[in-house]
Amino acid sequence: MYIPTLDDMKTARERVTPYIHRTPVLTSEFLNDLTGAELFFKCENFQKAGAFKVRGACNAVFGLPEDMLEKGVATHSSGNHALSLSYAAGRRGIPCHVVMPRTAPQAKKDAVRGYGGIITECEPSTTSREEVFAKVEAETGAEFVHPYNDPRVIAGQATCSAELIEQVEGLDAVVAPIGGGGMISGTCLTLSNLAPEVKIYAAEPLNADDAARSFKAGHIIADDAPDTVADGLKVPLKELTWHFVQNHVTDILTATEDEIVDAMRLIWKRMKIVMEPSSAVPLATILKNKDTFAGKRVGIIITGGNVDLDSLPWMEK
Amino acid sequence: MYIPTLDDMKTARERVTPYIHRTPVLTSEFLNDLTGAELFFKCENFQKAGAFKVRGACNAVFGLPEDMLEKGVATHSSGNHALSLSYAAGRRGIPCHVVMPRTAPQAKKDAVRGYGGIITECEPSTTSREEVFAKVEAETGAEFVHPYNDPRVIAGQATCSAELIEQVEGLDAVVAPIGGGGMISGTCLTLSNLAPEVKIYAAEPLNADDAARSFKAGHIIADDAPDTVADGLKVPLKELTWHFVQNHVTDILTATEDEIVDAMRLIWKRMKIVMEPSSAVPLATILKNKDTFAGKRVGIIITGGNVDLDSLPWMEK
Repeated sequence: MYIPTLDDMKTARERVTPYIHRTPVLTSEFLNDLTGAELFFKCENFQKAGAFKVRGACNAVFGLPEDMLEKGVATHSSGNHALSLSYAAGRRGIPCHVVMPRTAPQAKKDAVRGYGGIITECEPSTTSREEVFAKVEAETGAEFVHPYNDPRVIAGQATCSAELIEQVEGLDAVVAPIGGGGMISGTCLTLSNLAPEVKIYAAEPLNADDAARSFKAGHIIADDAPDTVADGLKVPLKELTWHFVQNHVTDILTATEDEIVDAMRLIWKRMKIVMEPSSAVPLATILKNKDTFAGKRVGIIITGGNVDLDSLPWMEK
Repeated sequence: MYIPTLDDMKTARERVTPYIHRTPVLTSEFLNDLTGAELFFKCENFQKAGAFKVRGACNAVFGLPEDMLEKGVATHSSGNHALSLSYAAGRRGIPCHVVMPRTAPQAKKDAVRGYGGIITECEPSTTSREEVFAKVEAETGAEFVHPYNDPRVIAGQATCSAELIEQVEGLDAVVAPIGGGGMISGTCLTLSNLAPEVKIYAAEPLNADDAARSFKAGHIIADDAPDTVADGLKVPLKELTWHFVQNHVTDILTATEDEIVDAMRLIWKRMKIVMEPSSAVPLATILKNKDTFAGKRVGIIITGGNVDLDSLPWMEK
């Protein structure tokens, strides 16, 4: 297992800069008053393809050696990684094969195709996905880019907190959502090297709290198909992300579905930004752990903004 | 009738700077490709109290002489001006009386009260509003701050385009929504003095196109209770705003309800920002007048972000 280093992050940063946004950091006096902390929202919802995932995807795609370009890249994802990898491959002009469940929303399929991704549909089960993906990989010879358990991807995600600590001085803590752990691992990689005084908290839906339970147990616990509104956070840790979580995360905090939806609505209402349920988990956990963050300067990663505008979670409550 | 001058704008700018945000300018490669123009979105949806109106309200409130402070300010509005005047008065610690129809949404009443505004309810008719407002004004002795037909308010709104031309060089045109004409008048005031080469376009809902018809007719035409999703744009021009429109606006372009809602959804989806239907009218008019704007550098004023998140217009279509 190759553990990405600070040099990998630096290489990634040079590599991806032409293809991504240096996203802005927003603040809200209202939310500062409400939490008693000073919050700095790193807005990856404004990122290319609508999420931080484009950082890792671009690092993987633009780091591919010449002799692998023709066959392109492949992945299985029904979410932001599929979009981001399609975007990155499109920018480099190479094929991108995406295995998606046939039940994935049409809007997501259209978006992947809009960026030039080639979709192969599978049944909505792990068995089918693995079978279909193995076939696609064998037939195309494309390079597999895992959504998070990949050193190239983690080094790419690590560029986000490198920007954040340049944009905001004197942070005491950073809170980011945790699903598979790609963003958290990138955050750990950068901060443990460049700003080791900054505490790193992961925020997780209580309904999909496998990372929190892993953290307590000291080994990876993977849940089967957890159900949460924060649909980007359903996947389990893998060995590479577990390495970073285990060594550099201060705590993993959880929030209920209602708390996540309330925090999401609050951010939309007060900050006037469109972001995903997953991105609301950090604020939800800060609101229920005020003592931990009171008086502190806290960075929050707003991980993405790809939501279905026709079906917002507070309307389904 | 006192016509505000460039000096009034400069005074306003010094006066309001401590109480407002210098809002960011966002861009979208997707929308540039779609329109063939280079678009620069001045995001007043991120402004204090959620709209540009706080500029004019702060200029009026912080320009009040000492001997008028005790009695405070008053207005009639069920929209952003009520919020903004309440915010400004709260910051200066003076009373703010707002006459609102009893049928106004509870959320709007709560927001006005949240900023410290004192609400007096009227029936939802012009007669009742005028009667009740006259009574409130007589009883309190508060200074009336009209939502737009007021030189203090126009000089305040004029600070928005002063920022915009510092943030974006070489603009060919600015497009802003028009209702009563406060934002457009402020834009005319600043640009006609500081950047007379920039063409000013007003964007109006076809369902409330009294300004467009006034512009063609050469005199003010006021509609009675027009109906449009762009609820900030239902009010008619008044003599002061008509002065600026008549002298400095290049054209007034209109868009249908469907075009406005489609443009609004497009901005939410691609730019990940929460903004009002009124703020979508400029993009809607640019999309249907592509030849006018192709190849041009175009500023767009996103006027505000106060929407009812429980009832978005594309869900009602």
